[in-house]
Amino acid sequence: MVDNNKSKTIGVGLIGSGFMGKAHAVAFRTVGGIFPLNAQPRLEFLADRNAEVAAEAAHALGFSRSTGDWHELVCDPAIDVVAITTPNSQHAPMALEALANGKHVYCEKPLSTTLENALAMTEAAEAAGVVTLVGFNYQRNPMVHAVRQMIADGEIGDIIGFNGHYVAGFMGRREGSYSWRMHPDEAGGALADIGSHLISMSRFLLGDITDVIARLDTVYPTRSSPDGVEHPVDIDDQAAILARFRDRPFTAMLDVSWVATGREMGLAFEVTGSRGAIKFTQERLNEVQIFKRDQPANRSGFTTLTAGPAYPPYGAFCPGPGHQLGFNDLKIIEVKGLIDAITGVAPSPTPFADALKTARVMDAIHRASATGEWTAVER
Amino acid sequence: MVDNNKSKTIGVGLIGSGFMGKAHAVAFRTVGGIFPLNAQPRLEFLADRNAEVAAEAAHALGFSRSTGDWHELVCDPAIDVVAITTPNSQHAPMALEALANGKHVYCEKPLSTTLENALAMTEAAEAAGVVTLVGFNYQRNPMVHAVRQMIADGEIGDIIGFNGHYVAGFMGRREGSYSWRMHPDEAGGALADIGSHLISMSRFLLGDITDVIARLDTVYPTRSSPDGVEHPVDIDDQAAILARFRDRPFTAMLDVSWVATGREMGLAFEVTGSRGAIKFTQERLNEVQIFKRDQPANRSGFTTLTAGPAYPPYGAFCPGPGHQLGFNDLKIIEVKGLIDAITGVAPSPTPFADALKTARVMDAIHRASATGEWTAVER
Amino acid sequence: MVDNNKSKTIGVGLIGSGFMGKAHAVAFRTVGGIFPLNAQPRLEFLADRNAEVAAEAAHALGFSRSTGDWHELVCDPAIDVVAITTPNSQHAPMALEALANGKHVYCEKPLSTTLENALAMTEAAEAAGVVTLVGFNYQRNPMVHAVRQMIADGEIGDIIGFNGHYVAGFMGRREGSYSWRMHPDEAGGALADIGSHLISMSRFLLGDITDVIARLDTVYPTRSSPDGVEHPVDIDDQAAILARFRDRPFTAMLDVSWVATGREMGLAFEVTGSRGAIKFTQERLNEVQIFKRDQPANRSGFTTLTAGPAYPPYGAFCPGPGHQLGFNDLKIIEVKGLIDAITGVAPSPTPFADALKTARVMDAIHRASATGEWTAVER
Amino acid sequence: MVDNNKSKTIGVGLIGSGFMGKAHAVAFRTVGGIFPLNAQPRLEFLADRNAEVAAEAAHALGFSRSTGDWHELVCDPAIDVVAITTPNSQHAPMALEALANGKHVYCEKPLSTTLENALAMTEAAEAAGVVTLVGFNYQRNPMVHAVRQMIADGEIGDIIGFNGHYVAGFMGRREGSYSWRMHPDEAGGALADIGSHLISMSRFLLGDITDVIARLDTVYPTRSSPDGVEHPVDIDDQAAILARFRDRPFTAMLDVSWVATGREMGLAFEVTGSRGAIKFTQERLNEVQIFKRDQPANRSGFTTLTAGPAYPPYGAFCPGPGHQLGFNDLKIIEVKGLIDAITGVAPSPTPFADALKTARVMDAIHRASATGEWTAVER
Ligand SMILES: NC(=O)C1=CN([C@@H]2O[C@H](COP(=O)(O)OP(=O)(O)OC[C@H]3O[C@@H](n4cnc5c(N)ncnc54)[C@H](O)[C@@H]3O)[C@@H](O)[C@H]2O)C=CC1
Ligand SMILES: NC(=O)C1=CN([C@@H]2O[C@H](COP(=O)(O)OP(=O)(O)OC[C@H]3O[C@@H](n4cnc5c(N)ncnc54)[C@H](O)[C@@H]3O)[C@@H](O)[C@H]2O)C=CC1
Ligand SMILES: NC(=O)C1=CN([C@@H]2O[C@H](COP(=O)(O)OP(=O)(O)OC[C@H]3O[C@@H](n4cnc5c(N)ncnc54)[C@H](O)[C@@H]3O)[C@@H](O)[C@H]2O)C=CC1
Ligand SMILES: NC(=O)C1=CN([C@@H]2O[C@H](COP(=O)(O)OP(=O)(O)OC[C@H]3O[C@@H](n4cnc5c(N)ncnc54)[C@H](O)[C@@H]3O)[C@@H](O)[C@H]2O)C=CC1
Repeated sequence: MVDNNKSKTIGVGLIGSGFMGKAHAVAFRTVGGIFPLNAQPRLEFLADRNAEVAAEAAHALGFSRSTGDWHELVCDPAIDVVAITTPNSQHAPMALEALANGKHVYCEKPLSTTLENALAMTEAAEAAGVVTLVGFNYQRNPMVHAVRQMIADGEIGDIIGFNGHYVAGFMGRREGSYSWRMHPDEAGGALADIGSHLISMSRFLLGDITDVIARLDTVYPTRSSPDGVEHPVDIDDQAAILARFRDRPFTAMLDVSWVATGREMGLAFEVTGSRGAIKFTQERLNEVQIFKRDQPANRSGFTTLTAGPAYPPYGAFCPGPGHQLGFNDLKIIEVKGLIDAITGVAPSPTPFADALKTARVMDAIHRASATGEWTAVER
Repeated sequence: MVDNNKSKTIGVGLIGSGFMGKAHAVAFRTVGGIFPLNAQPRLEFLADRNAEVAAEAAHALGFSRSTGDWHELVCDPAIDVVAITTPNSQHAPMALEALANGKHVYCEKPLSTTLENALAMTEAAEAAGVVTLVGFNYQRNPMVHAVRQMIADGEIGDIIGFNGHYVAGFMGRREGSYSWRMHPDEAGGALADIGSHLISMSRFLLGDITDVIARLDTVYPTRSSPDGVEHPVDIDDQAAILARFRDRPFTAMLDVSWVATGREMGLAFEVTGSRGAIKFTQERLNEVQIFKRDQPANRSGFTTLTAGPAYPPYGAFCPGPGHQLGFNDLKIIEVKGLIDAITGVAPSPTPFADALKTARVMDAIHRASATGEWTAVER
Repeated sequence: MVDNNKSKTIGVGLIGSGFMGKAHAVAFRTVGGIFPLNAQPRLEFLADRNAEVAAEAAHALGFSRSTGDWHELVCDPAIDVVAITTPNSQHAPMALEALANGKHVYCEKPLSTTLENALAMTEAAEAAGVVTLVGFNYQRNPMVHAVRQMIADGEIGDIIGFNGHYVAGFMGRREGSYSWRMHPDEAGGALADIGSHLISMSRFLLGDITDVIARLDTVYPTRSSPDGVEHPVDIDDQAAILARFRDRPFTAMLDVSWVATGREMGLAFEVTGSRGAIKFTQERLNEVQIFKRDQPANRSGFTTLTAGPAYPPYGAFCPGPGHQLGFNDLKIIEVKGLIDAITGVAPSPTPFADALKTARVMDAIHRASATGEWTAVER
Repeated sequence: MVDNNKSKTIGVGLIGSGFMGKAHAVAFRTVGGIFPLNAQPRLEFLADRNAEVAAEAAHALGFSRSTGDWHELVCDPAIDVVAITTPNSQHAPMALEALANGKHVYCEKPLSTTLENALAMTEAAEAAGVVTLVGFNYQRNPMVHAVRQMIADGEIGDIIGFNGHYVAGFMGRREGSYSWRMHPDEAGGALADIGSHLISMSRFLLGDITDVIARLDTVYPTRSSPDGVEHPVDIDDQAAILARFRDRPFTAMLDVSWVATGREMGLAFEVTGSRGAIKFTQERLNEVQIFKRDQPANRSGFTTLTAGPAYPPYGAFCPGPGHQLGFNDLKIIEVKGLIDAITGVAPSPTPFADALKTARVMDAIHRASATGEWTAVER
C-alpha cells in the first residue's frame, strides 16, 4: 500500500515558467495534499531563459534556487526529476542532457519537433533506465479513464466508429499572431501543437493507428507579427485526417484546427460501438455522454455521467459528486502518476516510448498530406 | 404578389405510400392552409405496388383515385405533377415516363441509383421544360436558410472550415436488418441513403465540391433478414470523406453512418469563418448556434438562435417564436416551393440538375474509395 | 377498431381566425391524413368579427362559408362542433349559445375570464350532454404523456417534488405593448394567459391542487399602446406560487411570467421522485430527461429520451425516430382527441369540467395574492 | 501593488480535516503558487476530535503540529488565523474562543446553528477587530462575479425576476442516511445545510431580502441509521420560499432540497432584467448564459460565456480560456481573499456580519413556515 511518506523527497528541477511551467509548479506543490505519496516533491531548482526571469519565477512559484542556464539544472545533484516546459524545439537537447545525467524526465508535449529527435530521446530514456512522462494531461481525466475502460470492457460492443477533434481558435486572428509557433523548426503548426494531444488520446482509447491519409491546410499564408510586419507562413493551420486503427473495421476521422473561431477547448470525441456510443468534450471535462442499446426503445437515450467519487481518483480531490475538477487538477493527477512511477508504484502512463508512437503517426500524416496518398505509420 | 387562388388547382399523382408517401400526401393536403398559393393541390391519383394497397392508401391519405399500375398514373390527363416516393431504383423509370408525358416531377432523394440514370433524368427534364424538385427537405428549414444567408453575406467572414455529418443508427443491428437497402442496385448503402442529404446540404451551403478522397466501410459483411437467413452484404455502412470546395482554402470533413448506435437524426454541421462560426444539428432543428468575433472577450460565446417569425417562412406556421416546427412542416415548405415553381413564382429550390451535381459527388466518393486516391468530381 | 371512415363527416364551425384560429383550421384540415378516424372533419363555416375578415379567412383557410356574425354559426344545422378561438371574454357567450344549440364545443384556453362563467359553461355542457374540449395543447405531446405514465406507474418512486414554470418574454417591452390583454375583464394578465397552461399541466401530471399561497406582481404599472399613449395597468405580469397537491408530501413551486426577457416558450417542469426524476421543457418539446436511481453510481445520470414511434402517437406522423414534431402537430393530436370523443372512441382529454378545476386553482391564487394567506382551492 | 512577499507568513490553524478540512488545507498550500500574496500561509497546527486522527491528518495534509484538543490551537501564539471546518454546532464555541484570543477566523458555513450564536459571533468579531470570512465559496467563482457586475451595471436593465435553486440528492435515500445532519441542534436540515449557500448567493447578487413566506417539508419523517435502526426526523428535507428584496418589484422564488434525486450540485439561478437575462448553474460552473435584448430578432438568443482570462482572477490559474476551474480552485480564490483581507489589501468578501444577515433570512423562513404567514426579516 502507498504510505504517505513525508520524509522521503524527490528533488524537482523545472525548466520554463510560462503557461505550463506554472501548471507544473502548482501540481508539484499541491499533489502531496491531495494524494498519499511514497515521496514528496521538493521544489528545488528553476531554470529559465535568463537569471532574472528565473529568479522571479522561482520566487513566485516557490522554488528554492534558480538559474539562467538550464545546463546547470540538469546535472545538479539535488535534482531527481527534470520537468521541461520550454518551447518544443528545446525539449530534445534538454531531455537528452538530463537523461545523460540519469535524471527522470517529465517533458511537455509534443515530445520533439522531429521524429529523429523523438527516437533519440526514447532510446536515451531506455538506456538510462529512468522514468519518463510526456504531458498529455487530458488523458489523466477520470472521465476519460472511465471511457477507456468501457471501451476495453466491451461495454458498448465492438468499436465501429471514431471521430476525434481538437479545434480551438487561439490562432484565429491573422493580424498580430505571428510568433515562433509559425516555425516548422519549432514543430509549429496546429497538428504538432494540439493535434499531438488528439493523436495521443485516440491511441490511448483505441490502440495503434496503422494508416492515414490527410490534408494539412495553411489558411493564412501570411500573418503579421505584433509589430505589424507581415511574414509568410507555411505551417498548417488545420489538418483533416482519415485514419485506420489496427484490427478495427472502420475509418476514423480526426480534425485539428487552431483557427476554429469561437472554439476554446475543442478536444472532443465520439466513439461508436455495436451496442452503444460515447461522447466527450474537454469543454465539459466533468461530463461524459453514454448510450447503451440494452434499454427499451422508450427509455433509451444518451445518459450524462458526471464526475464524482465513483470515478477514481476524483474522490481524492473532493468527496462530493458534481463538484467538478479543473484543468490544473488534471496536472496534479499527472504528477501523481509521475511520482508513483518514480517510487515504483505503477508504470508511467505515457513514457517517451509511447509519445514516440504518437510522433510516428504525426510524421505519417505529414507525408500523407504531401503525397496525397494513404500512408503507413512506421512501427 | 401571391394571391391565394383557390379556384386554380394542380392535380397531384403520388406513387408510393410508405414513410415518404404519407409525408408528401400530408404536405399537399395541408400546404394551402398554411401558405397563400397561386394554385391549390388536388389529391387526385395514388399508385402503389398493387391495386389493393393503393386503394387502401388512397382512402387513408385522401386521394380520389388509385391504381396498382403506376404507368396509368404518369400519363393520366388529370395529373399535373407526379410525386415519386418509391424505392430508389424506381425513381428513374417513373420519372422518365412522367417527363415523357410532360408532367412536373417531384422525386424523393437520391435522384437515382446510377450516375447514368441521374444524367438521363436531368436531360429529359430539361427537354420537357417542366418543373422538377428532389426531396432534400432538410434544406427547407428556415434556420438552415438563415445559415446559408449568413455565409453568403460574409457575416462570419471567409469560410475556413466545414465539418458535416449524417450519422444515424437505424441500420445498427446486424440481426434482422437485411433488406433491399443492402443492394447496390437499389442505391443501397449509407452514402446513397443518407449521405446524399449531407452532400446536397454541403453544396447548398458552400457551393461546388471539386475533389474528394474517401473510404467506404462495410461494418457488417453479413446481415440476417427478418426470417433469420444470413446474407453477404457489400454496400457501405459508413463513409469517411475529405472534400475540397471550389475556391475555398480548407479541406472539409464529411462523415456518414447508418450504424451510429444511439444517434437518431444526426444530420449536423459546423461552419467556421474567419470572423465567426455556426453549428447546427437536425436533432434540434429549431436551433442554430452562432459565434461572432465582434464582441468583447468577456461577452462572447455561442448564441443559440431559436426558430420564430424572424426566420421566414416560420411565421406562416405560427406567429409565436419558440413554438417549433416539426419534420412534416419542412415537407410543407418543400411543397410550397414546388407549387411556387409550377405557378412561376420562383424557381425550384433543388431541380434535377442540382441533384445531378450531388450524384456526381457521390460517384467521385465511390471511385475515391475504390482507388484510395484523391478524385476529381465530374463537372 | 377505428376505421378510417371517409364517408361520415363532422361539420366544423370556427369562430376567430388569428393565431389559434389558423392552428385549429390546419389541424382540422390535416388530421384525417395523419390518423384513421371514424368521421372526417368538414371545414364548413367560419365566423369572424366582420363579414369581410371572415370571408378572407374562410378563403385562406379553406372553409366553405363565412359570416361576420357568430350567432349565425352556432345555430347552423350543418355545424356539429363549434371551435372558439376568440379573445377570452368571448368564450363564455359563444360557448353557452353553442351548447344551447346542442353543439359540441372546442374552446381555447382559458375556459373563461371568471369563475362564475366557467361554472356556468361546465353546467351547460353537462346539461347538453355534448363533447367539450379546452385547448391545453401542451398536454397532447407524446413525451408529456410518457411522463405522466411514468409518474402514474411509480417509475420514479413516490413523487416528492415539483417545480413548474411558464416563463416567456412576449410582454417584456413596456413601450407599445398595451392591449386588451392588459384588461382584467379579458382575463388579462400572465396567470390567466399562460399560467392556465401551467396549472392545467401540473394537475394533468400530479392531480388536484388543494392549497396555494401566491404573489402576483405588476412589473410595469404603466404601459404605452402602439400609438404612444400611456395607460395604467393593474393585471399581473408575474405570479409566484407555492402549491400543495392532494395527498402529496411536498410544496410545489410554480412561476409564471410574460415579461421573462429572452425566454420564448418556457413551459417547463421538473418532477422529483424518491427513486428518480424527470425534466421537461417545451423549448425542446421532443425531449425528456429522466434519471433512475437503479443504476450503478458510475453509470447513472440523466438520460435524454427523444420523441419517436416508441411514444404514441408520434408514429402516426413519422415512422422515423428523432424527426421531431412541431407545435401544430400537438394541435392535430388534440383534434384527433376531439373527433374520437365525438365519435365515441374515447372521452375528451380536457372537458370543461376539468378546465373548471384549473379555473378554481387560478381563483384561489388570486385570492391568496390579495390576502397574503394560504388559501384553499374550492372543490 | 501586491508584492509576492515570501518572507512574511501567516500561521494557519485548522480545526477539522474532513471534506472541508482537506479543501482548506489544499487551498492554503496552493494559493501562494497561484497568486502573488503579501504574506504566505504557513500550515502550522491542526486540531481534530482526537490526537490520533489529528496527527494522521496533519501528516497527510502537511501541517507541522497537531492536537486532539482545539482549545490548544485557538490560543497558540504561532497561529494568526483559525480555520473552522467542524460540524455546524461547533462553529460558535470555536470561533468565539478564537476571537477572544485575537485570531482571525475563517469559518465554514452556515455561521452557526442559531441566530443568537450568529449574533454573538458577529459582535465578538467586531469587538476583536479581526478579519472574519465565512466559506460561501460559490460566490468566489469568476463567472458569478461577472454576473454580479452585470446586474450592478444595469447591463440587463432593471431586475424584474429571480429564481434561485439549491437542489441536490445526497440525502435522497431514506435507508441508512440518519446522522447528525438530521438534528435541529446541529442546524441540520436542507435549508441550513445548503440553503444557506442559496440565501447568501441571492443576497450577493441582489441585496437585502426583506420578507418571506415559506414552507419547509420533511419528506421522510423517519430515516434509518447505517446500523438499520429507525429514527424519527423532524428537520426539513425541502424548503419552498417566496422572497421579496428591498426596492425590487418582484417576488423571488427560492427552492432548496437535499432529496432531489439525481441532482448533484444544483445551485443555480436565473435573473431576469428588463433588457436581458442571465442563467447559471454550479453544475457547469465555468459557464454563464446571457441574453441581451439589444440584438435584432433574428440574431438574438442566449449566449454561453465560458470561463477564461477575461474573467479575473481566472488568468491566475491558467492563461488559456476554456480550460476550466474546479471546485477546489474556488476555495483557493477564497483563501486569496482571506489573506488579502488579513494583509489589508481588500476587505473580507463575506465577513461574519454578512453571514449574520443570511442567518436572519433563514430565521425568518423558519418562522414563516411555522406560521404560514409573510414574515419580515429582522434588520
Ligand atoms: N499539456 C498541455 O496541455 C500544454 C502543453 N504545452 C506545451 O508546453 C511547452 C511550453 O509551452 P507554454 O508554457 O505555453 O509556453 P510559454 O511561452 O508560456 O513558456 C515557455 C517558457 O520557457 C522558457 N524558455 C524559453 N527558452 C528557454 C531556454 N532556452 N531556457 C530556459 N527556459 C526557456 C520561457 O522563458 C518561458 O518561461 C510547449 O512544448 C507546449 O507545447 C503548452 C500548453 C498546454
Ligand atoms: N426526404 C427524406 O428525408 C426521406 C426520403 N426517403 C426516400 O423516399 C423513398 C421511399 O422511401 P420510404 O418512403 O422510406 O420507403 P417505404 O418502403 O416506406 O415506401 C415505399 C413505397 O413505395 C411503394 N412501391 C414500391 N414499389 C412500387 C412500385 N413498383 N409501384 C408503386 N409503388 C411501389 C411501396 O409499396 C411503398 O408504399 C426512397 O427513395 C428514400 O430514399 C425516405 C425517407 C426519408
Ligand atoms: N392553446 C394555446 O397554446 C394558445 C391559446 N390561445 C388562446 O386563443 C384565444 C385567441 O387568441 P389568439 O388566437 O392569440 O388571438 P388573435 O387576436 O390572434 O385572434 C382572435 C381572433 O378572434 C376574432 N374575433 C375577435 N372578436 C370576435 C367576435 N366578436 N366575433 C368573431 N370573431 C372575433 C379576431 O378577429 C381574430 O380573428 C385566446 O383565448 C387565447 O388565450 C392563444 C395562443 C396560444
Ligand atoms: N463550503 C462548502 O461548500 C461546504 C461547507 N461545509 C461545511 O463544512 C463544515 C464541515 O463539514 P464537512 O467537512 O462536510 O464535515 P466532515 O464530517 O467531513 O468533517 C468534519 C471534521 O470535523 C472534525 N471534528 C468534529 N468534531 C470535532 C471537534 N470537537 N474538535 C475537532 N474536530 C472535530 C471531524 O473529525 C472531521 O474531521 C460544516 O459546517 C459544513 O456545513 C461542508 C461541505 C461543503
